[in-house]
Amino acid sequence: KIHCDCCFCRDDEDTFKILIATDIHLGYLEKDAIRGNDTYDTLNEILECAKTNQADFILLGGDLFHENKPSRRCLHSCITMLRKYCMGDSPIHFNILSDQRVNFNTTQFPWVNYQDENLNISIPVFSVHGNHDDPTGAEGLCALDLLSASGLINHFGHSQSVESIEISPILMQKGNTKLALYGLGSIPDERLYRMFVNNKVTMLRPKEDQDKWFNLFTIHQNRSKHGPTNYIPEQFLDDFLDLVVWGHEHECLITPTRNEQQLFYVTQPGSSVATSLSPGEAAKKHIGLLKVKGHKMNMQKIPLKTVRQFFIQDVVLADYEDLFTPDTPQVTKKVEDLCYAKVTEMLEQAERERLGCPLTPEKPLIRLRVDYSGGFETFSTSRFSQKFVDRVANPKDIIHFLRRREQKEDIKVTVDYGKLLKTSAVEGLRVEDLVKQYFEAAEQVTQRQLSLLTEQGMGKAIQEFVDKDEKDAIQELITYQLEKTQRHLQARGVTTEQDIDAEVKRLRDSKKNTTEEDNEIREAMNRAKAHRLERGDDSVDAGISDEFADVNMDSDEGSYLSQ
Amino acid sequence: KIHCDCCFCRDDEDTFKILIATDIHLGYLEKDAIRGNDTYDTLNEILECAKTNQADFILLGGDLFHENKPSRRCLHSCITMLRKYCMGDSPIHFNILSDQRVNFNTTQFPWVNYQDENLNISIPVFSVHGNHDDPTGAEGLCALDLLSASGLINHFGHSQSVESIEISPILMQKGNTKLALYGLGSIPDERLYRMFVNNKVTMLRPKEDQDKWFNLFTIHQNRSKHGPTNYIPEQFLDDFLDLVVWGHEHECLITPTRNEQQLFYVTQPGSSVATSLSPGEAAKKHIGLLKVKGHKMNMQKIPLKTVRQFFIQDVVLADYEDLFTPDTPQVTKKVEDLCYAKVTEMLEQAERERLGCPLTPEKPLIRLRVDYSGGFETFSTSRFSQKFVDRVANPKDIIHFLRRREQKEDIKVTVDYGKLLKTSAVEGLRVEDLVKQYFEAAEQVTQRQLSLLTEQGMGKAIQEFVDKDEKDAIQELITYQLEKTQRHLQARGVTTEQDIDAEVKRLRDSKKNTTEEDNEIREAMNRAKAHRLERGDDSVDAGISDEFADVNMDSDEGSYLSQ
Repeated sequence: KIHCDCCFCRDDEDTFKILIATDIHLGYLEKDAIRGNDTYDTLNEILECAKTNQADFILLGGDLFHENKPSRRCLHSCITMLRKYCMGDSPIHFNILSDQRVNFNTTQFPWVNYQDENLNISIPVFSVHGNHDDPTGAEGLCALDLLSASGLINHFGHSQSVESIEISPILMQKGNTKLALYGLGSIPDERLYRMFVNNKVTMLRPKEDQDKWFNLFTIHQNRSKHGPTNYIPEQFLDDFLDLVVWGHEHECLITPTRNEQQLFYVTQPGSSVATSLSPGEAAKKHIGLLKVKGHKMNMQKIPLKTVRQFFIQDVVLADYEDLFTPDTPQVTKKVEDLCYAKVTEMLEQAERERLGCPLTPEKPLIRLRVDYSGGFETFSTSRFSQKFVDRVANPKDIIHFLRRREQKEDIKVTVDYGKLLKTSAVEGLRVEDLVKQYFEAAEQVTQRQLSLLTEQGMGKAIQEFVDKDEKDAIQELITYQLEKTQRHLQARGVTTEQDIDAEVKRLRDSKKNTTEEDNEIREAMNRAKAHRLERGDDSVDAGISDEFADVNMDSDEGSYLSQ
Repeated sequence: KIHCDCCFCRDDEDTFKILIATDIHLGYLEKDAIRGNDTYDTLNEILECAKTNQADFILLGGDLFHENKPSRRCLHSCITMLRKYCMGDSPIHFNILSDQRVNFNTTQFPWVNYQDENLNISIPVFSVHGNHDDPTGAEGLCALDLLSASGLINHFGHSQSVESIEISPILMQKGNTKLALYGLGSIPDERLYRMFVNNKVTMLRPKEDQDKWFNLFTIHQNRSKHGPTNYIPEQFLDDFLDLVVWGHEHECLITPTRNEQQLFYVTQPGSSVATSLSPGEAAKKHIGLLKVKGHKMNMQKIPLKTVRQFFIQDVVLADYEDLFTPDTPQVTKKVEDLCYAKVTEMLEQAERERLGCPLTPEKPLIRLRVDYSGGFETFSTSRFSQKFVDRVANPKDIIHFLRRREQKEDIKVTVDYGKLLKTSAVEGLRVEDLVKQYFEAAEQVTQRQLSLLTEQGMGKAIQEFVDKDEKDAIQELITYQLEKTQRHLQARGVTTEQDIDAEVKRLRDSKKNTTEEDNEIREAMNRAKAHRLERGDDSVDAGISDEFADVNMDSDEGSYLSQ
């Protein structure tokens, strides 16, 4: 052979080229005078990019729309752009082998749009729905379904049942490459977690040539932990998968990372717009051009040019002792000057980086988090905003004052949950340490409040687990119970002793459920453990592991590795 | 020639076949357990009918959607049906000769959908918007624009300016027939009236072969008077038109009627769903198959089968003296029995008429208007409803109690406006009669109230017009002033003499505006009169009158008249 068998450098008839994007949040802040067009410009860029790169198809990981009921402008723009970029004469080079009535079960036209005789599609778009654009109402329709009824996208991964889920892949073939595309639209994390735990999620596989398929799964859920059952652990996903495209998480971590336990890769493309001014959103935004040939894949990172820059920085005032203390005369003025300097610095950096990028919006997003604990006072942010109104896209909320160091004094129930959770997340702590920590934290609670916590079964749960080496389990249980208690107390405005008495009674009455929950979680863990044992070893993987390709990441350049 | 030149009996290459419908109000009462599917079933029937009849195109007169922001179900169903019925392989037999960028100015795809290379359209739909689905927001988009962006309909007649309107026709040609399709989407009547009055509405005409075109105009406005400037008089419309398709009015008066002054015909297809339980809605619902060949036209009435039957009847209790009077023992029971009998009678009639119509919904709409004036009491309608809950589609509002005969005693200003207006609408009354009637009516008003009316300038207005033979003008002014007074008094809860004094002062202060309005109306009338004089004679019509075809109405049979 003249050229390398696994080379992605040239397009060939066996290579799928898939443009991957997620969380476009079309319509986010569309009424903002400065940022109103951001999401529209970026969808346009993404679609144009798919066209330029002659992608076989576009795969979206959910939250195409920011609002469940997008505005008329939003729907109209989206329809217009899809019609503009995804219709046309370019031929489609792959076939669909699966039962399309199963794959596309939300329209009266249950076939891929490019096979519709009345539509001339050049780039099919496949999308699962996200939590922002999820199905609602008696008909279980989401905004995507309007597009799929129009034949502009192919909405897949919509599970109609709330009891159990069967994910049937779209089986695609291009040349000799077989691609099984699995998808699961957003489901409340707790519910999906429970379904996984109860073995109610099934991923179907083709009966023949199982090991010939490249298995790609698109999911839109919490990937990072928000409470023990409020995310989907990667371990829950089937290990026959090759690549998981993880939507919902906004930080761009698009370079596939290997899950060493399940032996699949996960790519988290991240959103194409910052919908909050948090650090994760400050990472440079990318989409991906995924190439799949046989079992080999390659992800090309493509930086988005139309995305508004976002810079975030933290300032802890107490760290500037040489400059000022709370007692310094005119300290607040000095603090404001410091902040002004920091923001100006970020603006200069933004301007430097924007040089030569005509598509990047002029005004960046800027966030300065100012920790003013230790006796400092805040200054007027509205006056501060005035100074940057012409240079910053978010002048009104540049400054975010917080008192991280004093947080525990502010909370009514005086357990420092944040600290406890943070500390217990540190690896290597023994169970005994965790329990000790728990009780130390609990000491800060009044005796009454402690009894409330105990009523929720936490003590018992810890007892049951204390001899087993299941740190994660305990940690999760502690987190879960503490958060639940906290939520309960806060939601009910529990403040007086009478309130607490009443609450204890209420909780005691509902205790049965809690116990059932604990049991379910325990069972799931046992099952997961048994499953791992069944396979003999965590690192041994029956089907495809030895054929699995290396992953190579490029940022717009074109060098590729082969296995 | 072997066959008659003007025959519509067979389809030929020179005959436009246009399916005409309006006011479909998709989504009306869509959450009603009984009637929820009505509008969907009927849209389906209309589209199917267009397909069966191989219509060249569908023309909709506005209010395709009931809600300005249709529900997801509503949009989804509409898109699905349009895609199902209006896409496909049937070739289109007419061409468009006008500048489509002007005709279709609300999309980024300013061409008729069937000429889009990426869409395979079998029946193009042309629609103006109605008042229910009118454009809103900064972008001036309406629900139809989502469909037109998708390529499913052709939205036309959207005037972007609020100052003046220029209506540019879609010029179509099929064989030797030239059709100029004018359209004007809904505009608040008062505003459009004013624009007409101020000569701000222009209908453009093709420069060449002006007399060769069949001129069809689609409008969605009040046709019946709701106050003097709250409708569009047919006389306002250009007299070069051949046929006006009048949307918005729900009563089916689809048989074209000739306006003897303007020498055009007007067809009022009426809604395809009853959105109120008023007599106009009880007329049998039809759509039309309009055939146009050269200057000749033929309208075939097509009864709609899926429309829910609606029967309405009036009962005046005082007319049943032989059966009961208010003093009869258990009179209310007897009244209820009478109503029960009437409703049952209507139900039986409904059932008979529904025989052999499997598509017609089983439960009819029933309305019994019970005039209980003369001392009768109402009975419990909720108990009454119970009896018909399984047989009537609107059990909760079958009975509508009113006291028509005592109305004048109930209303503070005791003029019987209804009667006055009704009487003065009778043709052939002389101006003197009208004025006399007015004063007779006015006599019923207290002296104070009369002075109030006079303050509004009515007396003066009548004086000014009394010597001219402008019955309409006076009638309009009377109507306008009376209604305005009535509204004023009611809205302000005017009851005491002090109130009236205060009101008189208020009105005197605001009189300037009223005078200006009067002047404008007078001016417009003079202008209209001058315009008629300019043309020499009301009955002479320069271009097309002598070539104008007879109109022949058929109800589903196929006999046609020629000129």
